[in-house]
Amino acid sequence: MKKNILDYNFPQDLKTMSQDELELLSYSIRDFLIEKVSRTGGHLASNLGVVELTIALHKVFNSPSDKIIWDVGHQSYVHKILTGRAGDFDTLRQFNGISGFPKEKESPHDVYDTGHSSTSVSAAAGMACAREIKGEKYEVVAVIGDGSLTGGMAYEALNNIGASKSKVIVILNDNGMSISKNIGGISTHLGTLRTSKGYLSAKRFIKNNIGNRGSLGNAVAHGLAGFKNDIKYTILRKGGVLFEELGFTYFGPVDGHNISDLIDVMERARSLDEPVLIHVITKKGKGYRNAENDPGKFHGIGPFNPETGELKRESSAATYSEIMGNHLVKLGEIHPEIAAITAAMGEATGLGGFAERFPDRFFDVGIAEQHAVAFAAGLSKCGIRPVCAIYSSFLQRAYDQIMEDVCMQKLPVIFAIDRAGVVGADGETHHGIYDLSYLLTVPELTVLTPCSGRSLEKAMDYAFSLNKPAAIRYPRGEACEYCFESDDSDEMKNFRVFSGKDVDIWACGNMYGYGLKLAEILKSKGINTGLVCVEIVKPLDLGPYDKNVPLLITLEDNDVSGGFGVHLAAELSGENTEVISFGWPDKFVEQGSFDELADLYGLRPEQIAERICEHIEGKA
Amino acid sequence: MKKNILDYNFPQDLKTMSQDELELLSYSIRDFLIEKVSRTGGHLASNLGVVELTIALHKVFNSPSDKIIWDVGHQSYVHKILTGRAGDFDTLRQFNGISGFPKEKESPHDVYDTGHSSTSVSAAAGMACAREIKGEKYEVVAVIGDGSLTGGMAYEALNNIGASKSKVIVILNDNGMSISKNIGGISTHLGTLRTSKGYLSAKRFIKNNIGNRGSLGNAVAHGLAGFKNDIKYTILRKGGVLFEELGFTYFGPVDGHNISDLIDVMERARSLDEPVLIHVITKKGKGYRNAENDPGKFHGIGPFNPETGELKRESSAATYSEIMGNHLVKLGEIHPEIAAITAAMGEATGLGGFAERFPDRFFDVGIAEQHAVAFAAGLSKCGIRPVCAIYSSFLQRAYDQIMEDVCMQKLPVIFAIDRAGVVGADGETHHGIYDLSYLLTVPELTVLTPCSGRSLEKAMDYAFSLNKPAAIRYPRGEACEYCFESDDSDEMKNFRVFSGKDVDIWACGNMYGYGLKLAEILKSKGINTGLVCVEIVKPLDLGPYDKNVPLLITLEDNDVSGGFGVHLAAELSGENTEVISFGWPDKFVEQGSFDELADLYGLRPEQIAERICEHIEGKA
Repeated sequence: MKKNILDYNFPQDLKTMSQDELELLSYSIRDFLIEKVSRTGGHLASNLGVVELTIALHKVFNSPSDKIIWDVGHQSYVHKILTGRAGDFDTLRQFNGISGFPKEKESPHDVYDTGHSSTSVSAAAGMACAREIKGEKYEVVAVIGDGSLTGGMAYEALNNIGASKSKVIVILNDNGMSISKNIGGISTHLGTLRTSKGYLSAKRFIKNNIGNRGSLGNAVAHGLAGFKNDIKYTILRKGGVLFEELGFTYFGPVDGHNISDLIDVMERARSLDEPVLIHVITKKGKGYRNAENDPGKFHGIGPFNPETGELKRESSAATYSEIMGNHLVKLGEIHPEIAAITAAMGEATGLGGFAERFPDRFFDVGIAEQHAVAFAAGLSKCGIRPVCAIYSSFLQRAYDQIMEDVCMQKLPVIFAIDRAGVVGADGETHHGIYDLSYLLTVPELTVLTPCSGRSLEKAMDYAFSLNKPAAIRYPRGEACEYCFESDDSDEMKNFRVFSGKDVDIWACGNMYGYGLKLAEILKSKGINTGLVCVEIVKPLDLGPYDKNVPLLITLEDNDVSGGFGVHLAAELSGENTEVISFGWPDKFVEQGSFDELADLYGLRPEQIAERICEHIEGKA
Repeated sequence: MKKNILDYNFPQDLKTMSQDELELLSYSIRDFLIEKVSRTGGHLASNLGVVELTIALHKVFNSPSDKIIWDVGHQSYVHKILTGRAGDFDTLRQFNGISGFPKEKESPHDVYDTGHSSTSVSAAAGMACAREIKGEKYEVVAVIGDGSLTGGMAYEALNNIGASKSKVIVILNDNGMSISKNIGGISTHLGTLRTSKGYLSAKRFIKNNIGNRGSLGNAVAHGLAGFKNDIKYTILRKGGVLFEELGFTYFGPVDGHNISDLIDVMERARSLDEPVLIHVITKKGKGYRNAENDPGKFHGIGPFNPETGELKRESSAATYSEIMGNHLVKLGEIHPEIAAITAAMGEATGLGGFAERFPDRFFDVGIAEQHAVAFAAGLSKCGIRPVCAIYSSFLQRAYDQIMEDVCMQKLPVIFAIDRAGVVGADGETHHGIYDLSYLLTVPELTVLTPCSGRSLEKAMDYAFSLNKPAAIRYPRGEACEYCFESDDSDEMKNFRVFSGKDVDIWACGNMYGYGLKLAEILKSKGINTGLVCVEIVKPLDLGPYDKNVPLLITLEDNDVSGGFGVHLAAELSGENTEVISFGWPDKFVEQGSFDELADLYGLRPEQIAERICEHIEGKA
């Protein structure tokens, strides 16, 4: 145990380690995580919470022949350490580095790529059925947090597994919010009791003998039933009953920081031939006082001082999220009918202030984007003006509800689409580069792309005044500070900043900065260049269109294959204007900063300028 | 009671009717439904099942100030009869007629438009919260079928209502599949028992006295708990426990054809100030022997002979669904790794034969499109080749899973997208006119639009050979029988049928027939016209593109604002080819036949020809 974590050959070495060695290992892993994540930033608290759970998983199961699926996946760091990637942690979440989420391309131990919530149980069900079709033998384990379990998709999957009786082991990683502390003491005992052969026999006896009797039954069976249900109702709380009704055998709760108990219950689950749910209680941030005290801060964090827990770079500039949240409070003061909805991202979307000021008009529905949007539609039908603040990438979950519930009924729901565009270190599963693609084709919807913090406020006022479905997209991070004379107008429209005769640049929202630089470069090369700031992409506002300019360049922080540029180009077919669109390519874009990715895909102003010059020369 | 249904002033007249009169009314309504739907076609069985339930609802609640929301909505015919629309039933589901689904534009009693499953509880939650914010007083009732309850979105909503304790009444319309018949006799009695004040008092007593005791407790409490749980486990089955765990007070099961019991339990629910779920047992097709014997056939049916139940027009031509299903059986014989997945639409998507031939490789996951797609991804990860057969409109629910689970992982899942394009009588909620819009912008996905039955088979072979994510879209109804020389090739590509110098028509998939007619008309007017049959829309295949033709016309059975034409036009920007795209307008399209709607929106070949001629003349 004197070895450095990098010296082990994981997961094989785990198999021969003693209980004491595994416990010492958990300390080494925690130190390693804190050291590494303090430099790179990342999801710390959730990973500190699953150290013992992950050790036990790799001790009991044989990855990758046994399949371990990490729901959401930001808690897979320990799994990465234990599957040969400890040496890559200096590149965690960096451009060209290892991902903060499971990626099959990184390791065969990452059997299913995740990022969005509540998919693991469905994937596990598929793998289990594939095993049965092919007559193979392996275990399938889904590790899902209590938060992810608020997503209806997980219920769809549990319901299917329970009915089919396929063997899947679901590990519910419950980080202590749902189970109150006063039963913590007895829970280990009861977990052991319920997972013992004796308990299972008793349960089968109850099932066989009570299932067919009348409502009063015989005394012995009744006693057992009462005892069983007493445990369920007074100790095991909601989880057990609900899962057993869905067709799972429920084991728990189990102390998620006791490796011995975890190994024991996992081995028992492995020995059964039926769907099992193991309810594990963990503590977010476990073992690092700063994170234990403020798990929210350490959920996803930038580089920090490991001694003090202080962030290395704290900016004072306001983010788009903060500006949205603050402005919504102002609107809320004026309009008592405004409500705010979040899907488990209250603070992150800037709604903390609104929640505090107007608790009765603030709704956190959990990770349930579909419900969030239809719930907003219901509110709206009865005179409330809801603002749904959801990340671009997660709003994909509610595409059908945006279409059918909100827009088909022409309801004035406002979508505050945060994290639109590339988001950086979270990578391909989290980039919000498809919202223009999926929203521009939705009838009745107005789509706004403010280019600055001030413009975001204006867009909110405008959306509110429209009394129709509206979406406002804005990126992650600090807001830009551009100001236009158009800001004095109440109307949102596409704004001509300056005119040019050779090339016209139409830059959407946050691409305005790049547009400005591009225009400067082109001008410096003697190309007479115009610039339009595009803040309304649907309905298409061609107000500033100058049909005498032969080349129109569109810039957008969206997949170029379905965004603003494509729609503009189609509209201008038949005009003497050639449209060339710049945005993210029609592929899934990896992790990296905006500038790194822009450079990779030729979207830096200098690169675009070069391509435009070549194009003009080619035509000449 | 001698009056005709048309002579009543509903819902007011219900309020003064006696029990006997209401029962007689239920007979009149059934006769009316059978007579009307036998002429127009429509959803008969589900409506026959809710006659008494709907009468009781309008007797107890005051619509529209009390809000009644119909999940999916095809069971709202009785509600329409009881809210002043009996006189419109000759136009049911016809072009310009009343809808087969709730529509606010038809009546203030239709408080929430539905069509897709599992939205009603979310909408109800929104309305209940709006009521609380505004300090108003009304009841909110969601009527949801047991099928809709397999959609995870309903669980998201139940979970939220249960936690918030907002008063919402959920009526679970359970049509007898989940509750076995042998307990039918005792269920009415137990329903009454559980909904009595006495029962509620006992329940509170149990809660207050047992909640805090140890695992054995005292004898009295134990006896009550045992009795309570006996009822739950042996009689009330899964439903009750699950809903109570989610925070609902559960009443049921109740005989859904006993008006008196229904009124009683609804009045009790109304008197409480907490979330209540009433579990109602109904029989699909109730009171019409033909429908009772074959509720599947009478779920959604065309015009039929009311005496015999025989369809008036039965076609012998194969539908696209049948061709897909039959060809999949052939592929399944050759490839043991092929599996088929449906979301509660096995027969309707043509998978009945596959299910029978390969029961171990057929998965009906219920109304759970999100799970269906991620489940397919899981299967695919472990070597199975799944085909997901889902209607275009319902696949909207799984947009995120198509993106993140299937395409981001480059998994070779095949989407068999049935009912793509306008679907006719089901109208705006069911038209499949957005799948090209939402799929063409998904990276890694191949999108095919076969133009005939033979071409659909070829597309399936091709998709299977690709070993990548692929989607094949085809419309509702009978397959076309075009044959091309390209059909001998294994490759799918866009196929030039004939060339022309003035205009080139590129017709996608099922629009090929219109394209052929359009070409004939244009030729007859002296316009030299070419025709391309477009069967692969992503990746864009420009093989047959002729850059010397100045005008290119695209035809597609998709929203024109985001479909094939837009993508082609953007690609051709800068070429000397003007692209004019024809498809459905950027609005929600109402019910009607393809030809009626095409006429309305100027998409008939004659209309398009006229516009092209005008355009050419205008340019000349």
